[in-house]
Amino acid sequence: MPTLGELAAFLGVGLRGDPATAVVGIAPLARANASQLSFLANARYLGQLQHTQAAAVILRPDQADGCPVACLLADNPYLAFARATTLFVDEAPAPAGVHPSATVSPLAQLAANVSVGPNVVIDNGAAIAEGVVLGANCVVGERCSIGAGTRLHPGVVLYRDVRIGEQCTVHSNTVLGADGFGFAPSPEGWQKIHQLGGVRIGDRVEIGACATIDRGALEDTVVEDGAIIDNLVQIAHNCHIGKNTAIAGCTGLAGSTIIGANCTLAGGVGVVGHVEICDNVHITGMTMVTKSITEPGSYSSGTPMAPTRDWKRSAVRFAQLDSIQKRLAGLEKQQQQ
Amino acid sequence: MPTLGELAAFLGVGLRGDPATAVVGIAPLARANASQLSFLANARYLGQLQHTQAAAVILRPDQADGCPVACLLADNPYLAFARATTLFVDEAPAPAGVHPSATVSPLAQLAANVSVGPNVVIDNGAAIAEGVVLGANCVVGERCSIGAGTRLHPGVVLYRDVRIGEQCTVHSNTVLGADGFGFAPSPEGWQKIHQLGGVRIGDRVEIGACATIDRGALEDTVVEDGAIIDNLVQIAHNCHIGKNTAIAGCTGLAGSTIIGANCTLAGGVGVVGHVEICDNVHITGMTMVTKSITEPGSYSSGTPMAPTRDWKRSAVRFAQLDSIQKRLAGLEKQQQQ
Amino acid sequence: MPTLGELAAFLGVGLRGDPATAVVGIAPLARANASQLSFLANARYLGQLQHTQAAAVILRPDQADGCPVACLLADNPYLAFARATTLFVDEAPAPAGVHPSATVSPLAQLAANVSVGPNVVIDNGAAIAEGVVLGANCVVGERCSIGAGTRLHPGVVLYRDVRIGEQCTVHSNTVLGADGFGFAPSPEGWQKIHQLGGVRIGDRVEIGACATIDRGALEDTVVEDGAIIDNLVQIAHNCHIGKNTAIAGCTGLAGSTIIGANCTLAGGVGVVGHVEICDNVHITGMTMVTKSITEPGSYSSGTPMAPTRDWKRSAVRFAQLDSIQKRLAGLEKQQQQ
Repeated sequence: MPTLGELAAFLGVGLRGDPATAVVGIAPLARANASQLSFLANARYLGQLQHTQAAAVILRPDQADGCPVACLLADNPYLAFARATTLFVDEAPAPAGVHPSATVSPLAQLAANVSVGPNVVIDNGAAIAEGVVLGANCVVGERCSIGAGTRLHPGVVLYRDVRIGEQCTVHSNTVLGADGFGFAPSPEGWQKIHQLGGVRIGDRVEIGACATIDRGALEDTVVEDGAIIDNLVQIAHNCHIGKNTAIAGCTGLAGSTIIGANCTLAGGVGVVGHVEICDNVHITGMTMVTKSITEPGSYSSGTPMAPTRDWKRSAVRFAQLDSIQKRLAGLEKQQQQ
Repeated sequence: MPTLGELAAFLGVGLRGDPATAVVGIAPLARANASQLSFLANARYLGQLQHTQAAAVILRPDQADGCPVACLLADNPYLAFARATTLFVDEAPAPAGVHPSATVSPLAQLAANVSVGPNVVIDNGAAIAEGVVLGANCVVGERCSIGAGTRLHPGVVLYRDVRIGEQCTVHSNTVLGADGFGFAPSPEGWQKIHQLGGVRIGDRVEIGACATIDRGALEDTVVEDGAIIDNLVQIAHNCHIGKNTAIAGCTGLAGSTIIGANCTLAGGVGVVGHVEICDNVHITGMTMVTKSITEPGSYSSGTPMAPTRDWKRSAVRFAQLDSIQKRLAGLEKQQQQ
Repeated sequence: MPTLGELAAFLGVGLRGDPATAVVGIAPLARANASQLSFLANARYLGQLQHTQAAAVILRPDQADGCPVACLLADNPYLAFARATTLFVDEAPAPAGVHPSATVSPLAQLAANVSVGPNVVIDNGAAIAEGVVLGANCVVGERCSIGAGTRLHPGVVLYRDVRIGEQCTVHSNTVLGADGFGFAPSPEGWQKIHQLGGVRIGDRVEIGACATIDRGALEDTVVEDGAIIDNLVQIAHNCHIGKNTAIAGCTGLAGSTIIGANCTLAGGVGVVGHVEICDNVHITGMTMVTKSITEPGSYSSGTPMAPTRDWKRSAVRFAQLDSIQKRLAGLEKQQQQ
């Protein structure tokens, strides 16, 4: 239960109000009560400011005059709000030590102050650094390494040779290092290509729940520092995700996709294999990326939603588009005569 | 092995035939044998009725005359069939009590007659009501509550503060309450917004396997009573799913999506964030919902499937559509002169 | 660490070079060092051949003259490479026997030489054949059978009545046999249709991570021999996947879809329910299959990716397509007068 004074110090921002006032949570402007903090990050909500019941509001210094309650004055209120959330997480610290039900190889190396939950399995040659938290039922394969401060939530599976950096978070039931989907056709059916690479995850990476990042065929699949990856994302073998790139839920990347730094892929995007996307590219939701992108900017595919009846009419015409264009060209030709 | 008489009583329907005949299973009309029950729910299969070998058929009273075997006379045969399936589930009851390999916090509350499977982990402050079944390897976080008669199949993970109502079913490896995908951009990269809300699931909700429902950023993510959610569905933070709404597999909802009651989303649908869909809306498969929907009805996007060669021709013209329309307008102008 | 002589014998191919040379791994042509094997499977990389530092290269006999190092002469270098990967998997053999933390029903049948990992749960009536490997935390339900040599990676859940053939691989956190998404509408909401069928997987099938294959409603959901299924794929109840068919990541099949043999579905494909796809069909990425396919060939839907600004112009016109065609028809009519 931080006070406004403690919050201002933590955020490194100015305070207009009583530093001794304590706040117990964070809520939206319109719903915050007198013991909650709020924030104004979008001018759209400016109208709600004057009626807010919050204990205090994080806002820009130039917005402070319209605020009927205490203010925390931040140049970037949304970022200050994000940082403030750190203080309000209501979660017991992970118990220190190795739970007696865990199965830890004597050939694994664990730093002194790790938290290994119930039923965790750690295989030979794994190296678990300081402050790592392994939730219940996590499995850490041979020769994996997990950097300091990283947390795996319950049910995460790391196959062998998965290296995760420091201060990462991996959410439940995500699988890192399963075999890439590599098979060669043969007269007897598909011949499996055993996947000999591993997975390398940088520092400060967050990976959502039920996501899959496959091991590389010959070399590692790589996710660079600071990347954030949402739930149910599929990253195939040999992909390379650049620094601070964000990938939203249900997106699937086919094999050997290379994505630059600071890209944002919205939800449900698909990227075909062996393409390269340069830095600073945004892909809108459910776009199918079918070729490399060499210029920063925003890219899209698909068609707009419409009532099904209207949409059907358009869809029928879509299949006639080539003939429509030919008929048009025919008319133009006649016109010119 | 119910008899036809028991079935008629259970379903509350009339019987034409010998009430002592026992049936051992259910099969489609064309394949049912003399010890199996069948049903006629679609006029398309009326032709199969006269040849059926089934022990008995659930059908409408007006269809009974065409039936060569015993009949269960139901106004809604499909619904009666659905109810009848309850009697044919071949599954041992979940063992009573707490399996010795489970790790249950002394600060959790368990009703007397729960079934807690092997390796289950239940954290502090969790409340497990009567008749709850927790399959092997489930993890129940701090302060979660699970209502009477609810079943979690093996491998389900509930993060802290997930509340599930009564008579729900959650299928294996689904994750409820993982962090929503909330990050603020900062000069040093993405600043995590700790997700301070929880998840609230109503009564009689069914959630498929490997699905993810994230905790809310400040308030709860909510799924109302009677909603049904299929496998591999992603429901992002702060979503609100209305009563009896059905969401088919591989659908993804971005953050703060509000969906009304009695909606049906077909498979692979995507919904962008912060939109609202009113009650009684149907979305066809793989539609991208890019804006709010305020009128009940059916909505679609996408293009029809075609042989790739034909499709490519249409796809090329799609990119020329604006110029095609301009050329058309030009011709129209000339025509008018 | 096989020698080139051993490799040639294993692959059944000719060798040009010193059979005593040992190789320690496989790498792409441009990056292989003097202790690594490489391969030339695509004429595109022919230019890299003359500069390769590899110990040896797998290539076609007619390409051998351009190779500066030892050669393994294979008619199908890619297939030979795939087979060679078998020799370079760096993974400890699964420990023999049943881990003491496993919970195995006395009513289950286990062959003598199985490997049952930590925390595995095996229920009544399950039958585990010779050489089966069950990774940590796998759950095997009532009456399941797993054929000789099959491996389940950690966290796989099999509900009751799932039968898997021989030499299969199922990757982590995949769920086989969860309830199909079957519900009948009723005045009180959705009435669950209990799913009374099971799942039957043939021999030599590989299934990726976090995939879901639901049990059938009345009969089994079936995957035939040699099929390969990638991560995060959803296969609904009553589907039938033909022999050697390949399904890439994030694809979803609705209920009762029948897919023939030797088909390839690229990533993110959706197939509506109750359609049939004949043998030898290819579906391109993110296609929505809305009707049955009776002719072999390649099929597609969707629109090409473009910069969002350009795409928006096309998207607006898509919604006007019917009116565009009508305007065109009007002009044509005038022209003919």
